[in-house]
Amino acid sequence: MTGEFDLIAILRERTAVARDDVRLGIGDDAALVVPKPGQDLAVATDALVAGVHFPEATRAEDLGWKSLAVNLSDLAAMGAEPAFALLSLSLPAPDRSFVEGFADGFAALAAAHRVALIGGDTTRGPLNVCVTVLGFVPSGRALRRAGARAGDLVFATGTLGDAAAALRLLGERDDAHSSNVDGALFARLHRPTPRVAAGIALRDVASSCIDVSDGLLADLGHVAASSGVGIEIDASSLPMSAELERRLDADARIACAAAGGDDYELAFTLPPENEPAMMQSLANAGCRVTRIGRIVEGSGVRLLDDAGDEIRLRSAGWDHFA
Amino acid sequence: MTGEFDLIAILRERTAVARDDVRLGIGDDAALVVPKPGQDLAVATDALVAGVHFPEATRAEDLGWKSLAVNLSDLAAMGAEPAFALLSLSLPAPDRSFVEGFADGFAALAAAHRVALIGGDTTRGPLNVCVTVLGFVPSGRALRRAGARAGDLVFATGTLGDAAAALRLLGERDDAHSSNVDGALFARLHRPTPRVAAGIALRDVASSCIDVSDGLLADLGHVAASSGVGIEIDASSLPMSAELERRLDADARIACAAAGGDDYELAFTLPPENEPAMMQSLANAGCRVTRIGRIVEGSGVRLLDDAGDEIRLRSAGWDHFA
Repeated sequence: MTGEFDLIAILRERTAVARDDVRLGIGDDAALVVPKPGQDLAVATDALVAGVHFPEATRAEDLGWKSLAVNLSDLAAMGAEPAFALLSLSLPAPDRSFVEGFADGFAALAAAHRVALIGGDTTRGPLNVCVTVLGFVPSGRALRRAGARAGDLVFATGTLGDAAAALRLLGERDDAHSSNVDGALFARLHRPTPRVAAGIALRDVASSCIDVSDGLLADLGHVAASSGVGIEIDASSLPMSAELERRLDADARIACAAAGGDDYELAFTLPPENEPAMMQSLANAGCRVTRIGRIVEGSGVRLLDDAGDEIRLRSAGWDHFA
Repeated sequence: MTGEFDLIAILRERTAVARDDVRLGIGDDAALVVPKPGQDLAVATDALVAGVHFPEATRAEDLGWKSLAVNLSDLAAMGAEPAFALLSLSLPAPDRSFVEGFADGFAALAAAHRVALIGGDTTRGPLNVCVTVLGFVPSGRALRRAGARAGDLVFATGTLGDAAAALRLLGERDDAHSSNVDGALFARLHRPTPRVAAGIALRDVASSCIDVSDGLLADLGHVAASSGVGIEIDASSLPMSAELERRLDADARIACAAAGGDDYELAFTLPPENEPAMMQSLANAGCRVTRIGRIVEGSGVRLLDDAGDEIRLRSAGWDHFA
């Protein structure tokens, strides 16, 4: 019988990260973990739905990785250190090879960040992956969306627009399995890198931080609203990969980088005097960083061309119910 | 626009429980909570899928209540005190009245237990509700499935079989909305009562505990396996409601009470010398409790008639992939 409990056993076996602060892991009504004195607990949850958050043909391994990655990205945006994860997996049928693949992808990223899977629930239903993550951050030192001030500079880690470009290229193809095509853009879509080390390095230098999941401009809109400021972004400064520059023309590139979503990079702000220390910290963390704009008085986010005129994109981001 | 962010705002507004230990609630990349010194954190997650865990016609208010109740029941089974909840709600369309109803049902139970909703994520997709709960339990004092010993007595809170009887009656009807029929059995199906106070009262007297979600015998099977013991249950002692006795014949009643599932009562064990103290504690907590069996050497769970012969039911419980 490949029933519910066997699926949990598969997940448990393949995601074994030992941590001293797990008093009781998977296998009881709840897990028990031991908080750290002087540390707040950061908690985030995100669900991924087939056909909405990922193409139907996405490989199980990639889905396992990505479902954890998008959640670790939320912890990274708070400057928190990941510790524990819980998973609720709804599957149309008890598919052992799918669960093994999913567990392997999940486990690869979990091991890289020493995240213990402490709760697992599998059930029958349309494919839906709900992950909750918990992490530690020293009390009062978490990064937030609020905190940016006029005069601060705006930065982004890594490169933007790759995942959106992959989705766009996918839409132009007939092959249902083209989501599995190898290539740098597709790797970015299916295996995003949560910027955990960068988030931790930014704890004492950034004035605000958010992860780029729904599109840079949309996400910075939350920073602007939470901080009570305006934001100007220079289109020509948006960091892009060589692959993106090769595959799309200039307008399409900017649309992907500014509004595409699914990047899981960090966008953050800091006062100019903190820039040198931040550059050094992120270099130590092995993370590329680019200055992309500035905080101004006012409200909202404006994307500017080299002449300082506003560029208006058709979509400013991604609303799950748009 | 009734987009994603408005749905979260509705949830946030209608589930406002203020707690000093919530440093940062809904509205950033992650929530921040402040652990209690000397307390472990109990964490559980459970997803509810339409047509699997609840009838399609279930009212939004009931679904909101039940999605939190099944999770608080997991904390109750650990003897933990609920504190925080996170919710991922997948909806086929952005339906404001559904979300308002859901939020009201969720909020009614959250307020009763002072549970703060600290994370909310709404997305488009087949109806799926994933809730994660966090609670506190003094270090080392959590109840577990392991711990029962030969000679211990077995107890159950409340009454068993009501929710299963409601589902059975529902299956005999044509009316798609019959799940909304008023009545004691349906109230038990749609508005289960997590035994939080009972779980806390059992911390220092029970040797093992589990919540009855998949069916008494199936759930006690986990206690037997975790504890390395056998369990004998007396069919004639199973606590049943007057409504259940009125609506079903004796065989059907026993099947519902022993194997029906969805009860969200606690089944627990303790050494005989702890029985008087437990009875007093649960009376103080306002919770009915019934002795239903005993722990023996061996393995597995056996349901016995008054002559001591084993009763074999067609199904020993509920596997989500059966």
